[in-house]
Amino acid sequence: MTLSLDIKTLEQIVGPENMLTDPVDLVVYSSDATHTKSKPNIIIFPTTTQQVSELMKYASANRIPVVPRGAGSSLSGGPVAIKGGIIVDFTRMNKILNVDTDNFEVLVEPGVVYKTLEKKLKPLGLFFPPDPSSQDWCTIGGMIAENAGGMRAVKYGVTRDWVMGLEVVLANGDIAWFGSGTYKFASGYEMHRLIVGSEGTLALITKALLKVAPLPEARLAAIAYFKTLEEAGKCVYETIRRGLQPSGAEIMDRLTMDAVSKFTGITFPECGAVVVNELDGDSDSIKKRLKILEEIYKQNNAISYKIAKDEEEAEKIFESRHAAYSALSTYKPTTELEDVTVPISKVPEMFKRIEEISRKYGIMIAAFGHMGDGNLHPNILYDENIPEEKEKAELVKDEIFRAALDLKGTITGEHGVGCSKIKFFGIEHSPCSVNAQKAIKKALDPYNILNPGKIFGEM
Amino acid sequence: MTLSLDIKTLEQIVGPENMLTDPVDLVVYSSDATHTKSKPNIIIFPTTTQQVSELMKYASANRIPVVPRGAGSSLSGGPVAIKGGIIVDFTRMNKILNVDTDNFEVLVEPGVVYKTLEKKLKPLGLFFPPDPSSQDWCTIGGMIAENAGGMRAVKYGVTRDWVMGLEVVLANGDIAWFGSGTYKFASGYEMHRLIVGSEGTLALITKALLKVAPLPEARLAAIAYFKTLEEAGKCVYETIRRGLQPSGAEIMDRLTMDAVSKFTGITFPECGAVVVNELDGDSDSIKKRLKILEEIYKQNNAISYKIAKDEEEAEKIFESRHAAYSALSTYKPTTELEDVTVPISKVPEMFKRIEEISRKYGIMIAAFGHMGDGNLHPNILYDENIPEEKEKAELVKDEIFRAALDLKGTITGEHGVGCSKIKFFGIEHSPCSVNAQKAIKKALDPYNILNPGKIFGEM
Repeated sequence: MTLSLDIKTLEQIVGPENMLTDPVDLVVYSSDATHTKSKPNIIIFPTTTQQVSELMKYASANRIPVVPRGAGSSLSGGPVAIKGGIIVDFTRMNKILNVDTDNFEVLVEPGVVYKTLEKKLKPLGLFFPPDPSSQDWCTIGGMIAENAGGMRAVKYGVTRDWVMGLEVVLANGDIAWFGSGTYKFASGYEMHRLIVGSEGTLALITKALLKVAPLPEARLAAIAYFKTLEEAGKCVYETIRRGLQPSGAEIMDRLTMDAVSKFTGITFPECGAVVVNELDGDSDSIKKRLKILEEIYKQNNAISYKIAKDEEEAEKIFESRHAAYSALSTYKPTTELEDVTVPISKVPEMFKRIEEISRKYGIMIAAFGHMGDGNLHPNILYDENIPEEKEKAELVKDEIFRAALDLKGTITGEHGVGCSKIKFFGIEHSPCSVNAQKAIKKALDPYNILNPGKIFGEM
Repeated sequence: MTLSLDIKTLEQIVGPENMLTDPVDLVVYSSDATHTKSKPNIIIFPTTTQQVSELMKYASANRIPVVPRGAGSSLSGGPVAIKGGIIVDFTRMNKILNVDTDNFEVLVEPGVVYKTLEKKLKPLGLFFPPDPSSQDWCTIGGMIAENAGGMRAVKYGVTRDWVMGLEVVLANGDIAWFGSGTYKFASGYEMHRLIVGSEGTLALITKALLKVAPLPEARLAAIAYFKTLEEAGKCVYETIRRGLQPSGAEIMDRLTMDAVSKFTGITFPECGAVVVNELDGDSDSIKKRLKILEEIYKQNNAISYKIAKDEEEAEKIFESRHAAYSALSTYKPTTELEDVTVPISKVPEMFKRIEEISRKYGIMIAAFGHMGDGNLHPNILYDENIPEEKEKAELVKDEIFRAALDLKGTITGEHGVGCSKIKFFGIEHSPCSVNAQKAIKKALDPYNILNPGKIFGEM
């Protein structure tokens, strides 16, 4: 895409040391954690809100696409500049500005890495509950833009639930504060949570006020093996139904186990599904709930199970689950990680449908995920260099999305629509719903310069 | 306001049995639970979404204001037709359409009364956590429109946190579904939660998909008396800080206690503040947490305290707090209930400011509220028939709002802006923030027919 950028003006805004235009850098910044690729025209590293505001005024006046970026770990093409333009890399706005232990709040810049925040909070007895798998490198700004989830979402909710306020720069350069430092807030529209999950299409986030929680006294884990995914599914449902409030209720199918075994050497008994649970809270309550969990395992015909004796053993138990994505990405030349989510009672049926789709096309699909909230990650494994496989993989993806929607689910639980699910967005949402969302987009970004082409495709 | 309504068309839409035009009815429908008064031109009782859609098409074509109404228990003027027009009374759309115990979800029409839903859920071991004081008569639609809170919000959050999806009718008559039946949802903008708390200004709600929770095994309560509001405030803070997760952390000042005594005969020891706590969960955990609560009471110099032995005693303990609003409304000829909310660490300071304001103007202010989330209800007590008092009350209100904002609070935690706090909305939010919110309003309601005049005043 040919765009005429006034480099001099941009230099005046952020300084020459805060921009990249070298063709090699442009290639480096042309993708995220998906297969989407598109080169931006320039990468800008703002260091202040004021710079972001001036940048947006310039971009707005010249109709230049602006794409925000954190660590680039998005799984939906979020930070890829599919229409070219400016990538605003927020990693130099990475200060933790305030930790308010009196009110369980932190104020951060968008480029703060999750792990850095965690390290800051831990000695204070606090934590920020949303815990995406990319937590070692993902940024808070990226988490907010994509409304990231994680394993603990089953108990603690997703990023949106922990955002109290946002400072944003709007498309026209206006700097606005949305939300409040109070737990309850009924003063006007909840703009800050509208921005959460809007994938960079409504505003650029320059500060975030986050709610944090007291660290639980203890955390323990358990692992159980089942003959079928259905039994595993019923087991997880029971843990929710009986109020055990697991802070983790993960599942992996046989194919995922095989990949993990190959990748890590961890072995699994002969079984069709494994469930990994975490319980947190005070230690007495954990003990009590673990007993109920054992009962539930037995009632649902667990082949065997193991309960961690301490936090070290608990971490070991989670090791296999943590390895799932990496293991699968090396299992076959191509891995496409999807993110369908269904009502929890429909999880066993969704697994069945995935198996059927896999058989129908002869394409491997490994499934793992956050079963406690119905959020599954089917991984389509194939070789994109074999045209026939590539074609089949597309059909597989299509059928997976349609199955999720058929079960009253959604095409994405925590990764966002980005550019990889645009077609299905229009199937999930009625024309009236899409029109209303487009009206919101147009209201806040009349020239369609904020991450254009995402969610809705062409406007 | 003279509006020319085509009664014939309206009759065709809802049937003559579903409308009121009698002048007496118009007077009855001219107010809510505030002092705001304004007569609508007609009251319509739709019974189907289709009727609401046709109604909006008519109203849109003819630029007629439309004001949704549930039980009329709003505390901010929400359902008052301050520009005249049509009041859409949703009380005849009052069916519980589905209770999905497998997925902890219920689908309801907006006119369902909270208490009716509670009665339906209780035998199933479920409950809908938001618990406004008006729960005996308020409707789910009204709760959603105002993002109602309640005593248990300190643990369970407010209405917004429990809304998974909404069917709405937009200003142009379009019927749209926002949200999903899944716990995680990252597919486009979170429109349903934007509608929550939008006070009828963005869309009319015709169905709501709500998340419900398993009923806790037990609930117990405790009451403690303190010499000062500050000690009481510190005590509540400690219960949060130490992770006790109270499902109620209420406070009342001396004036409120006096009013309650006069109204109910309940007596209080000599003290400056009373704290009422609820703990829920499994009974072992409650026992354990009650011990810590006792410690906290002692450490914060409680004059005395009492822990309920059973649920009956617990209900008795809460009786005084439940009576607070009614008691105060009869204490003086005029009561204005406000709803300021501050960060929890600022609650003691907010109480101090309220006392100072009261002394400065010689106007009684009784304060009670949901201390655990910083949500206070100062009640300005005076006689509106005495011009001098009325004038002073206005100044008192002004100073209370400014004090809350000065302490980084908000003008409303759970009642909404409505028409009673418009002036202060523009003080709380910067012009850029207000403009962005107005842009959203214009995008979804270009002719400003949905509850016009609310939140922003003139557009």
